[in-house]
Amino acid sequence: MRDVEAQEMHRRLWVYDRIREVVCRHGFEMVEPSTVENLETLEAKSGAGIRNEIYWFKDKGGRDLGLRFDLTVGLARMVANRYDLPEPIKFATIGGNWRYDEPQFARYRYFTQWDVEVFGSDSPIADAEVICVGAGILENVGLKESIIRISNRKLAEAYLKHVGIDSQQKLEQSLRIIDKIRKADRQQLEKEFRTLNIDDKAVEAIFSYISLNGSPRAVLDQLANFSLSEMDWRKAIEELETLADALAAFGRLNGCIYDMSIVRGIGYYDGIVFEGYDREGEDVGSIFGGGRYDKLCKIYGKRDMPATGVAGGVERLMISLERAGLYPKAELGAKVFIATVEPSLKLEAIRLVQTLRDNGIATDFDLKGRALGKQIEYVNSTKIPYLVVLGQKEIQSKVVKLKQMSNGTEIEIPFSSLVEKLRVLD
Amino acid sequence: MRDVEAQEMHRRLWVYDRIREVVCRHGFEMVEPSTVENLETLEAKSGAGIRNEIYWFKDKGGRDLGLRFDLTVGLARMVANRYDLPEPIKFATIGGNWRYDEPQFARYRYFTQWDVEVFGSDSPIADAEVICVGAGILENVGLKESIIRISNRKLAEAYLKHVGIDSQQKLEQSLRIIDKIRKADRQQLEKEFRTLNIDDKAVEAIFSYISLNGSPRAVLDQLANFSLSEMDWRKAIEELETLADALAAFGRLNGCIYDMSIVRGIGYYDGIVFEGYDREGEDVGSIFGGGRYDKLCKIYGKRDMPATGVAGGVERLMISLERAGLYPKAELGAKVFIATVEPSLKLEAIRLVQTLRDNGIATDFDLKGRALGKQIEYVNSTKIPYLVVLGQKEIQSKVVKLKQMSNGTEIEIPFSSLVEKLRVLD
Repeated sequence: MRDVEAQEMHRRLWVYDRIREVVCRHGFEMVEPSTVENLETLEAKSGAGIRNEIYWFKDKGGRDLGLRFDLTVGLARMVANRYDLPEPIKFATIGGNWRYDEPQFARYRYFTQWDVEVFGSDSPIADAEVICVGAGILENVGLKESIIRISNRKLAEAYLKHVGIDSQQKLEQSLRIIDKIRKADRQQLEKEFRTLNIDDKAVEAIFSYISLNGSPRAVLDQLANFSLSEMDWRKAIEELETLADALAAFGRLNGCIYDMSIVRGIGYYDGIVFEGYDREGEDVGSIFGGGRYDKLCKIYGKRDMPATGVAGGVERLMISLERAGLYPKAELGAKVFIATVEPSLKLEAIRLVQTLRDNGIATDFDLKGRALGKQIEYVNSTKIPYLVVLGQKEIQSKVVKLKQMSNGTEIEIPFSSLVEKLRVLD
Repeated sequence: MRDVEAQEMHRRLWVYDRIREVVCRHGFEMVEPSTVENLETLEAKSGAGIRNEIYWFKDKGGRDLGLRFDLTVGLARMVANRYDLPEPIKFATIGGNWRYDEPQFARYRYFTQWDVEVFGSDSPIADAEVICVGAGILENVGLKESIIRISNRKLAEAYLKHVGIDSQQKLEQSLRIIDKIRKADRQQLEKEFRTLNIDDKAVEAIFSYISLNGSPRAVLDQLANFSLSEMDWRKAIEELETLADALAAFGRLNGCIYDMSIVRGIGYYDGIVFEGYDREGEDVGSIFGGGRYDKLCKIYGKRDMPATGVAGGVERLMISLERAGLYPKAELGAKVFIATVEPSLKLEAIRLVQTLRDNGIATDFDLKGRALGKQIEYVNSTKIPYLVVLGQKEIQSKVVKLKQMSNGTEIEIPFSSLVEKLRVLD
């Protein structure tokens, strides 16, 4: 797996901080579930097939353990027996995950996700809350042009039943086919539907349903024309209406699209589902996604709680930020280097270094006992923007020249003003 | 392995931020080595025995992989072939590690370390630099009363040879015995020396050497009385002299003790070594430790670089902080809860919530459609310090009552001043 180099780490920490800001502002608490889970806990969510996609091993006690492959499982397990926590439980986490699949663009075997969950509320307002956290995170890193595509899994399921898909297995297979819509063309999907023995008329109907998308109010109007009488259909529409009202009150309705092709492939979703995209980079795939999974907690513990959440990949988010050039100017390493004219001044240099560091200025100096020329050569090979050369004269006069490496300009400045000056300089 | 609950996470993030501040101020760059290493990389540092103490497994390609058990290995591997990086390379990281041993007090199977390394300098000033990072971290989290115990592995080895310990194996075994001095009594250690067939006179001499400790200058004076002629002894003394001068210039000599019982058990140290303790909690063990390991990089790559570093356990640091009551007041979850008198006002509440959040105030509201009484019951069960109850009257007058939950006091305040007021309130 890969190492994170200095520039990427600097950006990562900036991204983590921006995510934490949004999460905390929304009243969520940061936690972190264990990196290792019992294999059966991981399988409970995703079936025994998950073994082939994760890292797992036996411990000395013969127990099967697996490295976590997402954060939702761990968060759900954490709360599933915690009767002491009042509802709703609002937990968030940022952490690394491991998946054993072929590395591909923007997908690594070790990857970091942020994950935000509300346990204990079945209201669409809770769904609005997590959608707003997702939108807020994109906004807070500077991606102002995001689109959130929203639907309701209950609606899709009711519709698929309505057009004649009667078995649970066929239903789940159909949802997985629909989920591929942004990755495959219509012909490919039609072929896959046919292998399920779904007739052409039904396939046609499914495509007309999933191609429905637009502003939430407009899509709700169009859905009203579908004359489905199933109770789940009615309930799903009501949920989307409440959601639209809440999103409007949050000021987030612009930027949201109701899009019936959104179903989220994974088995456990059972209500409102959504995916967030960077408008400039939909090809990278969704930057976050989530939805409601009211029955998952019950699998892990005794506490039966409705739940909804949102999660996003940090690596994908970082690709969008890179493209948009949205990172702050890197401040990697030191801001100033204190060089010395001769070795005998080393201790004087250290005293100045310490004063600057005590005042919060990132400061470096020669650790190799190099001659002045070599010290300056070193500074030139780094991104350190400022240089001070300390000689007998400077130490006696307590005035130094501060040199800006990018253009060679120098200013004279007394020791006593150096901290203040470096603070205001870029 | 364990989950990190909300309060611990809040404190952890605070600690990580304090560590990062110090590290960056000293001109180090944050990076993160891979969580998974080839088993042979891990064994190269610590021998094949390490297999029994770590989590390892075969991947589908039949390769033996192991979860990292510390961060030094990964950092050394990261730089060992990077000829593009100018020396010295100053890297730091904070990350989780896995060790498969019996959990004990302040020691977990999954634990977090901070690690700071200088690659490419053989100067004792680089050792001073990393010692100062360690001291700076303790200071920056509020542990002002720390002691750093320092010695030189070369000195110990020269002395052991001087008293007749002639084989490399016996030398290493002796160092491991000395390393136990803060965990076992003298009788126990004497017994262990005897099993190595070291005679009583030599054991006596070893104890008189390792009991030498005190202020750096005083210990250096005493060491001058030992009439050892070995070149390594002389060189080690010179290094400790240069180190003391540098520590004095950094303003860190107070708080440092030269203590000849410090040898660090691990095989790869070969120069200045040290351990940092919280003066109030030496029983927890060292909070950080490190030293020079000039030959390790060569094991991982082609770039043969001297190196020195310091690492500390976050969990142990947190025990000391807990004892000393040094954590900032917890600001877990929201600062204010917006309750509603009736469900019809929900959207108005959301608008107010969003305004507060947009202004950086951590704000929560009812996600469960509860009656007012139940909403207030919920707030009472949390640590949310302030409450606003929104009714028709408040919405019309645009004035609300802000209630402090701890004492029940209420103040009337217009919508327009709410943000400002909440910002200044504790």
